[in-house]
Amino acid sequence: MADDVTMDQIVSLCRRRGFVFPSSEIYGGLGSTFDYGHYGVLTKNNIRGRWLEAMVQERDDIVLIDSAIILHPRVWEASGHVEGFTDPLVDCRTCKLRFRADQLESAQCGRKPSRHPGGTPDCDLTEARQFNLMFQTTVGPIEEAGAKAFLRPETAQGIFINFKNVLQLARRQPPFGIAQVGKSFRNEITPGNFLFRVREFEQMEMEFFVPPAEAEQWYRYWVDARFDWYLRYGLRRSRLRVREHGEEERSHYSQGTSDIEYDYPIGWSELEGVANRGDFDLTRHTEFSGTKLEFVGLEGTARYVPWVIEPAVSIERIFVAMLVDAYDEEEIAGRERTVLRLHPAIAPVKAAVLPLIAKDPGMVEKARALYEELRRSEVVEYDEGGAIGRRYRRQDEIGTPFAFTIDGQTLEDDTVTIRERDSLVQERVAIGQVGAKLTEELRKPWTTPKTD
Amino acid sequence: MADDVTMDQIVSLCRRRGFVFPSSEIYGGLGSTFDYGHYGVLTKNNIRGRWLEAMVQERDDIVLIDSAIILHPRVWEASGHVEGFTDPLVDCRTCKLRFRADQLESAQCGRKPSRHPGGTPDCDLTEARQFNLMFQTTVGPIEEAGAKAFLRPETAQGIFINFKNVLQLARRQPPFGIAQVGKSFRNEITPGNFLFRVREFEQMEMEFFVPPAEAEQWYRYWVDARFDWYLRYGLRRSRLRVREHGEEERSHYSQGTSDIEYDYPIGWSELEGVANRGDFDLTRHTEFSGTKLEFVGLEGTARYVPWVIEPAVSIERIFVAMLVDAYDEEEIAGRERTVLRLHPAIAPVKAAVLPLIAKDPGMVEKARALYEELRRSEVVEYDEGGAIGRRYRRQDEIGTPFAFTIDGQTLEDDTVTIRERDSLVQERVAIGQVGAKLTEELRKPWTTPKTD
Repeated sequence: MADDVTMDQIVSLCRRRGFVFPSSEIYGGLGSTFDYGHYGVLTKNNIRGRWLEAMVQERDDIVLIDSAIILHPRVWEASGHVEGFTDPLVDCRTCKLRFRADQLESAQCGRKPSRHPGGTPDCDLTEARQFNLMFQTTVGPIEEAGAKAFLRPETAQGIFINFKNVLQLARRQPPFGIAQVGKSFRNEITPGNFLFRVREFEQMEMEFFVPPAEAEQWYRYWVDARFDWYLRYGLRRSRLRVREHGEEERSHYSQGTSDIEYDYPIGWSELEGVANRGDFDLTRHTEFSGTKLEFVGLEGTARYVPWVIEPAVSIERIFVAMLVDAYDEEEIAGRERTVLRLHPAIAPVKAAVLPLIAKDPGMVEKARALYEELRRSEVVEYDEGGAIGRRYRRQDEIGTPFAFTIDGQTLEDDTVTIRERDSLVQERVAIGQVGAKLTEELRKPWTTPKTD
Repeated sequence: MADDVTMDQIVSLCRRRGFVFPSSEIYGGLGSTFDYGHYGVLTKNNIRGRWLEAMVQERDDIVLIDSAIILHPRVWEASGHVEGFTDPLVDCRTCKLRFRADQLESAQCGRKPSRHPGGTPDCDLTEARQFNLMFQTTVGPIEEAGAKAFLRPETAQGIFINFKNVLQLARRQPPFGIAQVGKSFRNEITPGNFLFRVREFEQMEMEFFVPPAEAEQWYRYWVDARFDWYLRYGLRRSRLRVREHGEEERSHYSQGTSDIEYDYPIGWSELEGVANRGDFDLTRHTEFSGTKLEFVGLEGTARYVPWVIEPAVSIERIFVAMLVDAYDEEEIAGRERTVLRLHPAIAPVKAAVLPLIAKDPGMVEKARALYEELRRSEVVEYDEGGAIGRRYRRQDEIGTPFAFTIDGQTLEDDTVTIRERDSLVQERVAIGQVGAKLTEELRKPWTTPKTD
């Protein structure tokens, strides 16, 4: 595993700089649920934005959808979730807690916290039974069976049930894709590891519909394309790998699945999954709904059920991977700094504008004017609080790639210093050129300063 | 009410062009639930983006948060929702349906659909009882009382419970605000009117914390600021008004509430609400959590519970208002067209690139190159399908402000025509200048061509 950063360091930075807090903290918290602070929201927005650019805006063949979270309950019968989206659970009649049957080794007995339930003589475990991971609720005022509903455990099914709408209205034919970003919910028995396994998370899924004969080729294409996306946004190649599932590991619907794994502090784990789902989903929804979900070519020249290739990831897992990958502590001229070497397109704040002396009205005036100009097109911060070194370190910790400092010389010649986060190189530039310079710097391909 | 457009026309356009579909349609639909297609998602993204720009990016004093949807259940006791977020319901023992007691006049008897339950002799209504509008679910595997939870009915409470975190970590002092965008859920008994009252919706709320003595002034400020935002994005002044709630109409927490109303096809209705919530929320959460939520100035010079001003709106209501306001049908030189006069910053697609003749490889090549250049920074469409007039009308219907047409002359002198959606003015511009021209046009203040 990545041995130069621990999950505790990431959790601590997130807390200290207001990226992520434990949720409902003033009420004692709610296990494995988190709220995002200002920088966390901005970072997530950037991850989502870059995904949408690559998956939709820069392509011809993928359109967007945003389906409801509470869908018709039959959707989850067709998808197999009602029957099969379960974990095996056992109860302990002694300590009254419940455990995953397949994880008893690492479980904690409620009475004897230091010992495993299986190894405690007074543990009295029931037979394992299946527990469905979908959150259940009731829609509408009539409390009868028909009104039972589920919070979606994935966004994919909202795409499949709209396949026909998109085919007709967006005038598409395979190969084409439908992308969706939105919250999904899973009533995890053993959530944990910070944002790694949480009960509500934001999925980014894309279902790519292809002629069956092209499925294998597109499956390979999407594994490569998604892998390259992580490199493009600065993750170290040495901490990324593709792991293909063995036949016994694959889901019932899968003709082939590869995980793009990241070397998290907890070890190699799934970052994104790419699956060849075959015709499972469209066939099942055809069967359950009676609506034929297939592609029919012009004048009936072709007629088939497309196969589906699905790259699926959660923003939370990308968020953690990017923070882990970016985290660095170093000593510069005898002083320690923590720095997040985030890709500039992911960094929550693009630049800081800093008057060297907060009590100098001339500096403050010029700094404010520059700040107000820059924030029209980018997220920038103005900071006049404290010594300049301390302000730089604050920006380093949240990963701000550039700082513009207004000093005594600015008052004479209208130049400011640009300080670059990674190299710490400082150069002077005319204040009137700062906006264009920032735009240019942010559009440059970024060369990671990280060592492999 | 706005008499030149009906809700049916909007619903029909949304369906026809793939902005919005009824949800779970292949399963017979799920009442009052909708899925958004490609243009709908892009339009919503633009509305959200413009709100975030105005509320956060262009200001110093507001930070973002993204709290969980399932919060600690005590949050909803403190907020008053468990006790009071209810509608009065009656059951009919004959037809077995349930109705809102305060809307019996417009209700439909299940047995005799054409008659009101109150007016049907065999209707046998129970006493009214209170029905809570929060969706309920169960978190975690232990099915005991403590694991009962709710889907948030508003994003505001997620802000209040993080007040202290933001105060400390974002180094803020009143007046300052915390903004949140996200899904909220209400188990409405009588949803309806297209997107106007739906069970899940995306809220944009901002809680602005101020010294109590400044509350009235900030309340007025936010009513004006939000009103101006609608004008900035093109809504007609004649279809907007501010209506202040009378004392009897205000919620229990409110010291003053104003609705910014829009003249929808169903009549004047709330678009956005601005409320002066006093110190109700922070005081209640202090009481229920035991954590003191107050502002303490440097060295204790000031100590008070801030009052809260809240502008709150859903993307859905803005979406409908903007479509209604933009919708126009007109006859141009004997041909009818439907056009959405959306503000360019709201329009889902910013420009279309159209080769005049799809079979001309020279035109297609130049058009594709231009399209690929433009889509790096904006959402643009390439369309070579059908007669040019038909392609223009398709873009008019989705509100695309500009179309660039590559024709025979382009092959000679590398100029293209720009067609402007509203004026229909066409001018020629050098193909190398199109990118800069588009950027410039999109940044210009937009003058609405609508008549008041």
